[in-house]
Parts: sequence; structure tokens; C-alpha cells
Amino acid sequence: MNTQDTICAIATAQGGAIGIVRVSGAEALSITDKIFHPTEKNPLPLTERKAYTVNFGQIKNEKGEIVDEVLVSLFRAPHSYTGENSVEISCHGSAYILQQVMQLLINNGCRTAGPGEFTQRAFLNGKMDLSQAEAVADLIASTSEATHRLAMNQMRGGFSKELAVLRNKLLHLTSLMELELDFSDHEELEFADRSELQALAAQIHQVIERLVQSFSIGNAIKNGIPVAIIGETNVGKSTLLNALLNEDKAIVSDIHGTTRDVIEDTMIINGVTFRFIDTAGIRQTDDTIENLGIKRSFKALEQAEIVILMYDLQRHENFKIFFQEVEPYLKNKQVILAQNKCDLVDNIPSNSEFDKNNYHTIAISARQKINIDKLQKLLTEVTHIPSISTNDVIVTNLRHYEALTHALDAITRVEQGLISSLPSDLISQDLRECIFHLNDIIGEVTTDEVLGNIFEHFCIGK
Amino acid sequence: MNTQDTICAIATAQGGAIGIVRVSGAEALSITDKIFHPTEKNPLPLTERKAYTVNFGQIKNEKGEIVDEVLVSLFRAPHSYTGENSVEISCHGSAYILQQVMQLLINNGCRTAGPGEFTQRAFLNGKMDLSQAEAVADLIASTSEATHRLAMNQMRGGFSKELAVLRNKLLHLTSLMELELDFSDHEELEFADRSELQALAAQIHQVIERLVQSFSIGNAIKNGIPVAIIGETNVGKSTLLNALLNEDKAIVSDIHGTTRDVIEDTMIINGVTFRFIDTAGIRQTDDTIENLGIKRSFKALEQAEIVILMYDLQRHENFKIFFQEVEPYLKNKQVILAQNKCDLVDNIPSNSEFDKNNYHTIAISARQKINIDKLQKLLTEVTHIPSISTNDVIVTNLRHYEALTHALDAITRVEQGLISSLPSDLISQDLRECIFHLNDIIGEVTTDEVLGNIFEHFCIGK
Repeated sequence: MNTQDTICAIATAQGGAIGIVRVSGAEALSITDKIFHPTEKNPLPLTERKAYTVNFGQIKNEKGEIVDEVLVSLFRAPHSYTGENSVEISCHGSAYILQQVMQLLINNGCRTAGPGEFTQRAFLNGKMDLSQAEAVADLIASTSEATHRLAMNQMRGGFSKELAVLRNKLLHLTSLMELELDFSDHEELEFADRSELQALAAQIHQVIERLVQSFSIGNAIKNGIPVAIIGETNVGKSTLLNALLNEDKAIVSDIHGTTRDVIEDTMIINGVTFRFIDTAGIRQTDDTIENLGIKRSFKALEQAEIVILMYDLQRHENFKIFFQEVEPYLKNKQVILAQNKCDLVDNIPSNSEFDKNNYHTIAISARQKINIDKLQKLLTEVTHIPSISTNDVIVTNLRHYEALTHALDAITRVEQGLISSLPSDLISQDLRECIFHLNDIIGEVTTDEVLGNIFEHFCIGK
Repeated sequence: MNTQDTICAIATAQGGAIGIVRVSGAEALSITDKIFHPTEKNPLPLTERKAYTVNFGQIKNEKGEIVDEVLVSLFRAPHSYTGENSVEISCHGSAYILQQVMQLLINNGCRTAGPGEFTQRAFLNGKMDLSQAEAVADLIASTSEATHRLAMNQMRGGFSKELAVLRNKLLHLTSLMELELDFSDHEELEFADRSELQALAAQIHQVIERLVQSFSIGNAIKNGIPVAIIGETNVGKSTLLNALLNEDKAIVSDIHGTTRDVIEDTMIINGVTFRFIDTAGIRQTDDTIENLGIKRSFKALEQAEIVILMYDLQRHENFKIFFQEVEPYLKNKQVILAQNKCDLVDNIPSNSEFDKNNYHTIAISARQKINIDKLQKLLTEVTHIPSISTNDVIVTNLRHYEALTHALDAITRVEQGLISSLPSDLISQDLRECIFHLNDIIGEVTTDEVLGNIFEHFCIGK
């Protein structure tokens, strides 16, 4: 993508009262001037107007016909989101008008922006580092207090600033060490203080390890805590899922511009997102053809942190066999034993034979929606997500997690190398690898391919 | 609705990169100041900043946590859309963030705006007359060049200015005539020149009549030209409808904020909207219970301007009976005879026995999508919509049409009364009625109920 082009995009979703077209690039003001006709009271073109002003006028087409009455917000480089000259054209939110404005901008020299291209330019122009840019997409996709807070922390600098400082120290010591190699005939020469390096490596190890460990929390907050509902056929699993989802008014079923590729059934209770895993294949069957599906479902079950184990109070005898089969998979998981169809039996066994290992037992009726609210409350209670403060640094991004894991491996090798007094050139290699992975997160020396992968998941207009 | 409140609303649809929260009212700036924290470089509160500026800063919640980094556009009464103090807060387009900003504004004294309440205030504050305000909703809902042009003409003053001038003249003469009644013991006294009144009545008659006549065009452009597809069962009607709709990429199936209550299947070809009428009930049947449905369908058929009469080339013998039944309903309509399943027969009769009365005949295959493009072209060719220039005055609004029809009746009675020298008090009554209906369009002396009806169809945030 040519970063010299002036780009434009519709930045609002279709269907609102107001629609915004965004333009950014060296020619943003002069191109907009060709289609924007200010009021007679102030006929100055945008190119001669001040930054941070709102300008009223009309967009006209080539035939001189009015397309819309608009407000144009004006920004000048470098004091804009992208760091370039920019305008935001606020139109009436008609699909036709927005398309016309886009067409006129393109006819006059703009190019349609790719996904996330405005943010990519902000990154390339040094307005934010890569992890901050990535947080923008998370911020837009945020639907709960927790996801919003994580994205906001990351966007405001988060861990990347801390990593950048450590990276710079590491880079300095590594350069000194490599300088020694140039003077390798003087064996006693030591520019880089080994004890200083050892202390720094330990510090970096500690920071990175903490970040790596935070990922499981970050991932749970961002993508939801994985919950599996399992039980025999016809025990009421789908009914329960629907009841849970319907009860909750804040279901997020359709998020535009999110970085998640697959949208599963999710539910937000008290600001915590729960994600339901598809384990439909887990059931008693003699059909060998179904075995593959069953295996896949058991694999999915392994990902669950919470398992809702359902059985029909009317047929709990059948459940015994099923329970024996799944019990080995329930270790180290929070298990909620949901006794379904409680409205159809007279006696609910207060202490079920299946209720062991500290299972949480609850009698419900999925169909009659009895105790569904209690089950939701139970879900939040068995969840151990620490509350995130505005200053907590949590890794939520898989790309960051992977880079940090590699950096942690490398710095661990550096520490071992220093202890066993490995030759400097070997240690230097591990140091370089650690620096490489830290750079990957901050976005120094990033390839076009990496950038492309990151920004293609953004929405258009951001 | 209290018009003194400061109101707020999300003005953009969910899902974009940017989301806008609009605030309007006397306290718009001071309330926003409570949650908006400008950058340190310029710590002035919004209340002390200039109009037409864009202001960068952070929205913070009660706990001092950052909700978002935003741009606030500032407008001061009377130079804003509503004529009141206003701000537009441009946020990251996250549903969570927008809800939080709304909540903070409400906590600090704003009220959620009702549908169209911003435009209603613009009307109440004299920024636009009622017909212009109504055009705003049409403009936002516009999806084609023609609907856009009509809405834009109306919003820019359109016929309401012309009507206002005529109404004022009429009001003047009516007042003079009513003054005569106060001096009714002096029979010869005549303040209002009768010949002048006659000329004015004729002029008003002409203007209103032209506007009333324009409604059929306006309605066709705005709501689409009604098209019915009829034919026997299993002749391929649904397949054809799907083929027509699928071929067209500009289908509008889901328009938010439109004033139309029912969305039917519509299709835009060359800027002309076609609306397909449901006449599914029209078919041969011996079932008497179905008669009601059939009657309804025939009534719907009467609304059609274009009828696509379909028959199966393989079974055209059956079609004879069907044709005899529907033929009486096809008078004064453009009829396209669609010979379906042309891919399944060897010979297509070039001049069908049913192809009379200047029917347009076309051989198609709905399933194989043969000649669907030609059928679409034929639809636009048989349509007689004059092209609308930017200055044409066309009535598109049913409310206006009804008021104009009543005004036309009243002014016709005035003219007749003047010819037959009716007593002044009777003529004055008709004059008052005409003025009343003209006022209804312009929005002078409008009741809260009328306003409520008009603006409840607007989208929130406009």
C-alpha cells in the first residue's frame, strides 16, 4: 500500500443519523476543497483555514448539484490521529450520500483506505507504537467494562513502554558485548559489565514472565471464559443455552470491526464474558461413525474452565454411565451440576450421588426458566478473574503472547549462558533473539507482512 | 417533551470505527465540561472556548478512569443545527464506550433525546420549517439519486416557501374581508378587493393543483413503482423475484431511521426504485376458504403500475383460463408477458396468443437466469418517470398530499363562492380552512400531537 496516497473511508456504520467520511494524507485539504463549498459568510478554502475548526458548507457534485450540507472538521499534520493532514466530513447518514461523497473524493484524487489504514499511518508516523495501534481495534470491539479497560490500558502505553525501556538497556549492553568480539585478540577486554547484564536479564525475565502469565487472564477477559454444557441427548442442553442467552440482555452476537474471526455464543454477566464451547458431540452412542465427532468434542471440553454437567432428574439412572465416561475430563475444572426438569419431580435429592469433588449443585428448569438467574450468578462466583485496575498490565493479544514466550526462552538461555560462562558470541546471539522478539511487540523494525496481518483485521475507516 | 432539557443521543449506528454522541440544550457545554478533560496544553473548559472548534481530550468517569480519548465539536446558540448550544462527541465506535458516555451525560443532567428531537428543536427554534424538517428524515433514508434529490429539494425550502408567500397574501385579504363583517351594517363597504382575491385564489389553485398532481410521481420515486408478478402456481414467480433481487446489488432490505413502516422487496435499477407487491393469492383455486385471500390479492393488483404476467411455456394451455380471469384487471397498466422456462422448450412462439394490447413480451428462464437483465431493462423502459431536476418541486409526503388536497377543495369553494357572490362570512370560512391546511404543511400553529406524529418516525440522534 502506498503511504503517500491521500486516503478516504466511511468511518461510521450504515444506518445512523450522522455519517462520517474520513480523509487523510498530504492532499486531504486540497482534494476536499474541490468538492466542499463553504458558506458565503466565510468563503476561505479549507487549505487556508485553521486546524481544529468545524466548517459548515455544502458538498457539490461535478454538475454543481448539492449532495449534502455538511460539517468538515479540519486537522493539520502532525496534530491529527494519523499525523497527516486530515478532514472528517460529517454528513446526513444516508447510504446514498456517503457513497456519493466517497465517489467525489475518489474522482478528485483520493484512494479508498484499506482496513485499519488510518491507524497504520498513525503507527508509521510515530503517533503510537504497534501494541497501542493494536489496542485501537480492541477498544472499538470492547463490549464490557473489563475488555474496555484492558484495551484502554494497552492503548495508553501499557506494557510496551516498559518493554521499550528494558529493550534499550539490553540493546546497549549487547552492543558493548559485540564490540568486545571485534577486539577478540584482547581476551581480557570486557566493555559490557557481566554482573550488570545478569541483573538486567533477571529483571527482564521477571517482567516478561509476569506478562506471559497474565495472558490466561487477559485471554479470558477478552475472549470470554470458556464454558461447556455437557449431558446426555435430550437432557435440555440447547434449551439451557437459549435460556441463558435470552436472559441476558447484553448478548454480543454481531460485533463489527472486531479482531476475532469466529463469533461464538457469548454472554456478559456482571462485566465478565462467558463463551460457550460447542461440545454437542459428547453423548452416549454405539455408532462408530460418530467417534470422530466425539473425539473432537472431548478435545473442546479440555479447553473449558467451567463445565455445566446436566442431567434429567427424571432419568438420573441413565446418567450414571454417561458420568463415568466424562468424569476423567472434569479434573481441575469448576463443575456445576445442573439438575434439570426440577419442575417435573417431587423430590430433588439434596445430595446427589454425582455431586462430589466440590461440584456446585443447582436444581433448574431450562424450559420453565427456573433458577436460571441463580445459575448465572453461580457462573460468576466460580470464576476467578481478579478485578483489573486501570494500571494493571495484562497481555490479551496472541501475537504478543507468542513474542513474549520466545523472548522469555531467549532471556532464560542468556541467564544460563552467563552462569556457565558461555563465550560472548553465543550469549550475544540469544540477546539478539530476545531483542528481536521485544521489537516485534513494540513494532520497531517490522516487516510489511507483519503490518499487513495486523491491520487487515481492523475495520474500514479506522 | 420538555424543550428546556439538555438532551443527548448516540447519532451513529452501532458497529463503525467512529461513534458520535450528540448533546444539545442550554447546558450542553457545562454538562459536557463535567466529564470532558481537555489536554494540558489548553486546559480551558468548553464553556470558555470558541464555537466551531474541535477539542481534543478525555472523557473520564466518576472514578477518574479514562472512558475514551475523544474529539468534541463545539457549537453555540443560535448557530447550530438545533439553534441551541450543542456539542458532538466523537468517540471510538465501541458500544460500551458510547453507552458509558451517554450514562455519564445523563448522570450529569442530560436527558436521552426522543426520536427526531434534535430536528424538532431545529424546527421549534426557527432553523427550518416543518416540511424542511420532514425532509431531513427522507434525506437520511435516501438510497437513490432520485429519492436523494427530492429530499434535498424539499429540505432546501422546496414548495413550503412558495406556499408561505401565497398563504401570507391570502391571510391579508381574509383579514380585510373579516374586517368588513365588523362593519356589516355598512353593506357597501369592501376592504378586500374581490377581483384581487379572485386572482389570488386562481393562482393558489394552480400552484396547489400542480403540487397535488406531483404526488403520484413523488410517491413512485420515494416508495418505488409498484410491480406485481402474477401467474399460476408453480409457474416460477418466487424464483423470478429472487432472480430479480439477486441480480441487483443495490437491494435495500434494511433501512434504519426511515419513515417507511413496512419494508417490502425493493430493487433499484438505473436510479429508479421498484417495489414488488404481494399478490401471492392470485391463482386458480376451487377452495372457497381461500376466496378472501384472493380478493385481497386482486385489490393489491389494482395498485400495480406494472404487471409481470408469467406463464410456463411448457403449459401454456393451462394459462388460458387464468388469463381470462385476470385480463380485466390489466387495463391501464403496463403489462410485461414473461414466458418462463424458455430453456426447456424448443420453439418460443414469437407472437403469443396472450400478447395483445401492446403487451411487452420476453422469453426468460427464472431458474437459469436467462434474460433477467433484459427484463430489468424492460422494467425501466416501460416506466414513465420524468427525470427530476434540482429545482423541481415534487410532493412526496402523504401528510402534505392530504393537506394540499384539503386546501385545494377549500380554495375551489372560495372561487365558486366569489363567482356566485356568496356572503362574505361564508367565503371567509373557506378561506380560513384553506389557510389552516397550508399552515399545516409549513408548520405554523401546529399542535403537539401533530409534531409528535411527525417526529416519532425519525431515528434517534437526529
